[in-house]
Amino acid sequence: MNESSLLLWLVILGSIPAGGWSLRQPLKKPNIIVFFADDMGYGDLLSYGHPTQEYGAIDQMAAEGIRFTQWYSTSSVCTPSRAALLTGRLPVRSGFYATNGPTHERVFLTSGGGGLPRDEVTLPEALKNVGYSTGMVGKWHLGINAYRHDDGYHLPTHHGFDFVGTVLPFTNHWACDSHKIHLPHANRKLCFLYYNTTITQQPINHDNLTATLVLDAKSFIYDNQENPFFLYFSFAHMHANLFTARRFKGSSKRGRYGDDMNEMSWAVGEILDTIRSTGLSHNTLAFFISDNGPHVEICEEGGSPGMLKGGKATSWEGGIRVPAIAWWPGVIAGGQVSSQVVSTIDVFASAVDFAGGTLPHDRIIDSLSLKSLLLHKAQSPHQVLFFYCSDRLMALRYNSYKIHFHSHSFPSEEFIRYYACPDGGLPVTQFYYCYDCYGNCITSHNPPLIYNVEKDPGEKHPLSPWQHKEMIESVMAVVAEHKSTLKTSSHDPQLNIIHRSLVPCCNPPYCVCN
Amino acid sequence: MNESSLLLWLVILGSIPAGGWSLRQPLKKPNIIVFFADDMGYGDLLSYGHPTQEYGAIDQMAAEGIRFTQWYSTSSVCTPSRAALLTGRLPVRSGFYATNGPTHERVFLTSGGGGLPRDEVTLPEALKNVGYSTGMVGKWHLGINAYRHDDGYHLPTHHGFDFVGTVLPFTNHWACDSHKIHLPHANRKLCFLYYNTTITQQPINHDNLTATLVLDAKSFIYDNQENPFFLYFSFAHMHANLFTARRFKGSSKRGRYGDDMNEMSWAVGEILDTIRSTGLSHNTLAFFISDNGPHVEICEEGGSPGMLKGGKATSWEGGIRVPAIAWWPGVIAGGQVSSQVVSTIDVFASAVDFAGGTLPHDRIIDSLSLKSLLLHKAQSPHQVLFFYCSDRLMALRYNSYKIHFHSHSFPSEEFIRYYACPDGGLPVTQFYYCYDCYGNCITSHNPPLIYNVEKDPGEKHPLSPWQHKEMIESVMAVVAEHKSTLKTSSHDPQLNIIHRSLVPCCNPPYCVCN
Repeated sequence: MNESSLLLWLVILGSIPAGGWSLRQPLKKPNIIVFFADDMGYGDLLSYGHPTQEYGAIDQMAAEGIRFTQWYSTSSVCTPSRAALLTGRLPVRSGFYATNGPTHERVFLTSGGGGLPRDEVTLPEALKNVGYSTGMVGKWHLGINAYRHDDGYHLPTHHGFDFVGTVLPFTNHWACDSHKIHLPHANRKLCFLYYNTTITQQPINHDNLTATLVLDAKSFIYDNQENPFFLYFSFAHMHANLFTARRFKGSSKRGRYGDDMNEMSWAVGEILDTIRSTGLSHNTLAFFISDNGPHVEICEEGGSPGMLKGGKATSWEGGIRVPAIAWWPGVIAGGQVSSQVVSTIDVFASAVDFAGGTLPHDRIIDSLSLKSLLLHKAQSPHQVLFFYCSDRLMALRYNSYKIHFHSHSFPSEEFIRYYACPDGGLPVTQFYYCYDCYGNCITSHNPPLIYNVEKDPGEKHPLSPWQHKEMIESVMAVVAEHKSTLKTSSHDPQLNIIHRSLVPCCNPPYCVCN
Repeated sequence: MNESSLLLWLVILGSIPAGGWSLRQPLKKPNIIVFFADDMGYGDLLSYGHPTQEYGAIDQMAAEGIRFTQWYSTSSVCTPSRAALLTGRLPVRSGFYATNGPTHERVFLTSGGGGLPRDEVTLPEALKNVGYSTGMVGKWHLGINAYRHDDGYHLPTHHGFDFVGTVLPFTNHWACDSHKIHLPHANRKLCFLYYNTTITQQPINHDNLTATLVLDAKSFIYDNQENPFFLYFSFAHMHANLFTARRFKGSSKRGRYGDDMNEMSWAVGEILDTIRSTGLSHNTLAFFISDNGPHVEICEEGGSPGMLKGGKATSWEGGIRVPAIAWWPGVIAGGQVSSQVVSTIDVFASAVDFAGGTLPHDRIIDSLSLKSLLLHKAQSPHQVLFFYCSDRLMALRYNSYKIHFHSHSFPSEEFIRYYACPDGGLPVTQFYYCYDCYGNCITSHNPPLIYNVEKDPGEKHPLSPWQHKEMIESVMAVVAEHKSTLKTSSHDPQLNIIHRSLVPCCNPPYCVCN
């Protein structure tokens, strides 16, 4: 065996980062993949410290790339989090808030008539401008219909995606319990599957969903091997985990939630293996990110925030700090763990930067490119990150500090134990203890509640506001400057619009198809 | 460069497990090192999920070996935990309990006259029988004097250690605050440093302590390169972290606790580098283990239990589940994470097994060898682990279940925030909210409180005892059988013995030396 064949053999065995010892310069138009998980918690992966979740392809991706420990979502719920990913803008700038009702709706319902405004420039649109093919599969949650139950006005095909495979415009897995674990019948009004703009199943059957998404994504990759592509693989996992395929059932020590984690990992592995086997791994930048924190009120059916406080729908760290991995063998050094403070919102500018595109100039873009950070371990470009609930600024991250102006309450251990989830965490219903942005469950803080979340990531020990007056003054100046940029909102509040006639139905009045 | 020199180069770079691609059979008498940390939490290391603790040699050791996620200490406090490590027996069998006073003392005080009974067979004694040199540095906490203030009757030299370097028979770093962070003066009665059996400093100065321990340990290794050795490196870290050397101050995003973690990691790296540079790494099995959970009542001065409940002194998972790593390059496959349920008590039988020694036949040994698990990923030999507080059986681990018969209460978030640790977690005093084994703060559970800690490691969701009657019956049979083995205790309760005249003093009546 000569030297080069030995080296090849070591690369094949996977023990040397593909690409060899020295990293290469990135190619000019890398393929970009975003795996986006739903309600997966900061503490759900073995690599993020879960003791009994099995090792899988997502952990492998982390070992081969960068695992981020202070990566934030822009929002603690799905719709605005996804809007920020695809627009690179704070959701409050692009219409993802409500102003009506006592609670201010936070996500699109099936009867919602709002959606991602068509004049928002999405990441696939920005990449198409520089020659990319664009595709997506999986969860959308950025609008369905605008005027009729079947116009599909807001579906992804109208937002820059050339290829749209199997897609879930809306998800509520609990209500769609096809395994009859919690409910005897699925609610057809909440449960439908599309292929591009057509309903293919109503109600949805979860059994083969993941395999179908994988097949669609693979075919998109095979079809676009010769040109740069952007793939948005948006998982139905983990959100109320009720859809594990038979072969993953019982695969986890953690029970059903762990089974679903294993299925999701399998899917990520299938896609990355496709990238490897098509010879594209040297030229593909992939992210794995969760959209927001775990739904802790459903106990064993929801995920774990690890050592963080709170969960989905709250602006405590458990709601907004998410697991996130960047992977590009041979270009991004493997085995890194980064504690830089960054955000899902940065995927937009980073992808456009790598692709050689340009950011829209006619609007405020909150996204900042992480190119130098990913390639050269540069510092984060952010000094501050803002966290909204609808149009209310709840909290911000400022250097090592977390500053809360308003915070969500959460249930006592006793409440969870006796009312929500008896017998080991089996939930009796799906609910949020404090979901609203203006409800009675919100506590306002003046002076703000401050934690040093680098010393105290669990937000257990607030700092004395009297001993941090100067810092609070700096923060208030930052907030005032930020708020001045919001005065000219370009969009009406999309979450105000609700009408029963807009609920998708494949064959009125029955709404049953397969 | 030829093939073998390339391979060597790759090994040197550390990217191939030393020993090459295929694992070797273990040599017959490997060197054995036990790094034992004090009060370090399950969630304190980056590799165990801490977001802002810096990467260090301990994480590197985990990457090159096995990181255990369900490794238990035998006790939630220092003295009995260390007794179990060195005897392979439950502390209640070897006299590590008390029967007097309302609280039943749990650890040795400086006025304690008890200690590790001399007829207990220690791990260094078992290894000496098969030709090992034995040495220790650092924290002891298994007794000092028996009859006079200077007889050193219980010191490690009487328990099988040929070499005893710089040693702390007792630690209370808070009371020995040489940096004057919390206290103006150290309490001489609690603060002394020995070299073997001689007091070398009273009160102790922490500044160069770690470097001194490292030097002593290195000299032991250099002196014993030619014959098998056992080294017990028992850290003063992390227990009330007040002794970081100047060059580690400010090294961590986590503050002082993180600085100390970095110093401890440096020390581990120094020792492992010595093993590597002396060419012994192919023949050295090393463990890194924490003695018990973190002291959460001292907030930013204490560690993190991660996602686990409770902390030091409690039998919640946070008190007894500890970070633990096994390392043997080329023999134990690197990069493993094991969720097998094992215990610090197993180090004894494992080491004796590897060394070709024999376990004592005249007494009950609770330790089981992990040799097959370490080498061949075999299942844990344990179905059950017992957790005592003094002589009271608090809880046990049975398959995937944790069963509590009694549990410690813990302070509310508000209590900690307003009384114990204001302004970001700076503690005003050192205390335990519930330390006693029989005090009012203990809640007894009948039927027992049960968690599936593989699904619910945070012990949030108890199982319904009515739905697990059969399992409880099995557990009660296991407990009855276990209790029958305790009827003939071979030792008096060592923790009953307390006398003021036994407090060490280097030059009565002043007790000040350097």
